[in-house]
Amino acid sequence: MSAEIVCVGTELLLGNILNSNAQFLAGELARLGIPHYYQTVVGDNPDRLQQAIAIASQRAELLIFTGGLGPTPDDLTTETLADFFATPLVERAEILQDIAEKFKMRRRQMTPNNRKQALLPQGAQVLPNRSGTAPGIIWQPRPTLTILTFPGVPSEMQQMWQETAVPFLKQQGWGQQVIHSRLLRFWGIGESALAAKIPQFFDYSNPTVAPYALDGEVRLRLSARAASEAAALKLIAPVEAELRTLTGQDLFGADQDSLASVVGELLRDRTQTLAVAESCTGGRLGAMLTQVAGSSSYFLGGIISYANAVKTNFLGVSRELLTQLGAVSEPVAKQMALGVQQQLQADWSLSITGIAGPGGGSEQKPVGLVYIGLASPERQVEIFEYRFGQERDREAIRYLSACHALDRLRRRLLAG
Amino acid sequence: MSAEIVCVGTELLLGNILNSNAQFLAGELARLGIPHYYQTVVGDNPDRLQQAIAIASQRAELLIFTGGLGPTPDDLTTETLADFFATPLVERAEILQDIAEKFKMRRRQMTPNNRKQALLPQGAQVLPNRSGTAPGIIWQPRPTLTILTFPGVPSEMQQMWQETAVPFLKQQGWGQQVIHSRLLRFWGIGESALAAKIPQFFDYSNPTVAPYALDGEVRLRLSARAASEAAALKLIAPVEAELRTLTGQDLFGADQDSLASVVGELLRDRTQTLAVAESCTGGRLGAMLTQVAGSSSYFLGGIISYANAVKTNFLGVSRELLTQLGAVSEPVAKQMALGVQQQLQADWSLSITGIAGPGGGSEQKPVGLVYIGLASPERQVEIFEYRFGQERDREAIRYLSACHALDRLRRRLLAG
Repeated sequence: MSAEIVCVGTELLLGNILNSNAQFLAGELARLGIPHYYQTVVGDNPDRLQQAIAIASQRAELLIFTGGLGPTPDDLTTETLADFFATPLVERAEILQDIAEKFKMRRRQMTPNNRKQALLPQGAQVLPNRSGTAPGIIWQPRPTLTILTFPGVPSEMQQMWQETAVPFLKQQGWGQQVIHSRLLRFWGIGESALAAKIPQFFDYSNPTVAPYALDGEVRLRLSARAASEAAALKLIAPVEAELRTLTGQDLFGADQDSLASVVGELLRDRTQTLAVAESCTGGRLGAMLTQVAGSSSYFLGGIISYANAVKTNFLGVSRELLTQLGAVSEPVAKQMALGVQQQLQADWSLSITGIAGPGGGSEQKPVGLVYIGLASPERQVEIFEYRFGQERDREAIRYLSACHALDRLRRRLLAG
Repeated sequence: MSAEIVCVGTELLLGNILNSNAQFLAGELARLGIPHYYQTVVGDNPDRLQQAIAIASQRAELLIFTGGLGPTPDDLTTETLADFFATPLVERAEILQDIAEKFKMRRRQMTPNNRKQALLPQGAQVLPNRSGTAPGIIWQPRPTLTILTFPGVPSEMQQMWQETAVPFLKQQGWGQQVIHSRLLRFWGIGESALAAKIPQFFDYSNPTVAPYALDGEVRLRLSARAASEAAALKLIAPVEAELRTLTGQDLFGADQDSLASVVGELLRDRTQTLAVAESCTGGRLGAMLTQVAGSSSYFLGGIISYANAVKTNFLGVSRELLTQLGAVSEPVAKQMALGVQQQLQADWSLSITGIAGPGGGSEQKPVGLVYIGLASPERQVEIFEYRFGQERDREAIRYLSACHALDRLRRRLLAG
């Protein structure tokens, strides 16, 4: 028994959107213990969609489709599936009524194109869509094949998955062997350096240990197969413990941990507070910190000092310094950190000033030059200089700046 | 002639990461006029990777692989390709030397596992990797099939693509018919309402017009096939003009425009400035605004007033109001907007205060309740109340809050 994910939409083939639905479904299947070995993306084209259905239905017993359920003529998933399995489409009165009610509630006019969404293959069950107008189906076109369809809108798809698909799949008893993964997450070490520290682990089979690199971050994925999540975690725990010992502080967390959430826990443990002063990141560091639920217990807020006037008026950065050395300089980073710490009466503070590009660089101060200031409760400031390189784009430089600022504070808090 | 994208990595099947490489390559292929009809994701498993190669090599003449070129034993792309096409691997001295130099430059120790990255199928050209240690290949295992491989790290893949793959592909002359797409982007209208306004457009064939919905946003994709990008744009222009007339101000921009960039242009045209006061969004609005290069010409900065003390001390929000009505209330949004406008001497200001959840909601003030304040140069404040619903998660509520704030300012600026 294995599943396959088929995402339908020319927007995916044109690169207009990220395939976040595939990621969501992949994680969910792993959690349910239903293996899946392939994902396919295909456009809004009935012939090629038929070919994708032909291949997927040969190698998997559960096919999960996203996209192509909308009201417009290029939404073809339902009718193409019906076609492929030579099954007629039938208008379902309960769906039509549901759509009409939704339009009434939202005080919008129901349009004739929505009527198409009430057509389902004969014999298919409705997979209800509580928020949107496009329902999906649960359908067994033949005894050994089950098809689930979802709209492409991520929030609707996820809600339908959780409310109807998960209970259905659990009931089928297909999730025999759970594959449970745990991610160990590293900042400040490269993939091959990390791999070289722990070569023996890559021969393990249960759990397997696999590294992969993202921009700035390296991860180790520990995946175990077992009868339950608890049993899988039991296999993972001793391996994780060994890895933690061998890798030390470069490991910042696991699974859903982020640099921001880990810093938050450390601050909460000490009942200390944090404030930020951001120039080139413009709020990105604050946004990362406040992405963590409950961050109000240690994060006070900050100053987005994008204009120099804000740096002088709110953070007490000296006008002279700004004129002589420019906003992207060590002393300005220092004054920003001390200024926001004092103004917000925070125990700790972080400041960031840099050149995110694409313009504004010079030979002496190239794009990617960033200073990070870290002020301690003793009013001591450490300054860190980074050169992220001119090849990186604006958003990557801003992202790395905010992450490294958090990582510096994390290491400082761990040092005691 | 068509291409196919094959992304290799168990991390994709487990949902650990988003497949941003597929999106990047898809957009690039469209830009080059090389059609591709399928994308496949497969794990780090040699048998299944062989099956994916078998299928893809039957239906496309250009195969683009990402992932599986790393130094660790689960990186199998190169050797599986060599295996499938019954070609021996050969160690390439120039790659080995390049890897050794990179390690020397970074003052890191080269590890034996990196040696594996110097093995290429006999007859393959090196596709150089300037930033990382894993080179790719350009290989014709048979006359009618070309294979390109890239590492999975997005920044390395993109650099290799731009520097070597694009010139190579252009030289082959495969990009005969350019598919050029233009996205029209809408905020504040649903997909079916938009579609119902313009039903006749969905029958067009060149350009095609296709709608799709994202969280909060609706897009129309206009795609034309033509001999060049310029010729495609000529086909698109009159259709776009008609659509703009029919849809009005719900259309906020096209292609790479964001709500933030459009607001920025409007402010720049008037030489006016903006400041923000953010509570539940914690910097996300500022981060969106400063993601736009050149935003320093109109964006002054802001106050992240996460703690109530910051609201009173920096924005002049009354302590009494905070006690009586709570931070998430219309009057507090108003005082925040006026406070930051005055403090930063900005022409316009936006404020956001709300309950992003998952905790902190009550019957009267549920999770998802958000107030947005917009102060005009005349010191008039408009307040907008949103109820994003308790089904949405914290990050979606924060994202929608920041977007709606920008959209309110956009509509206000357009109103003159």
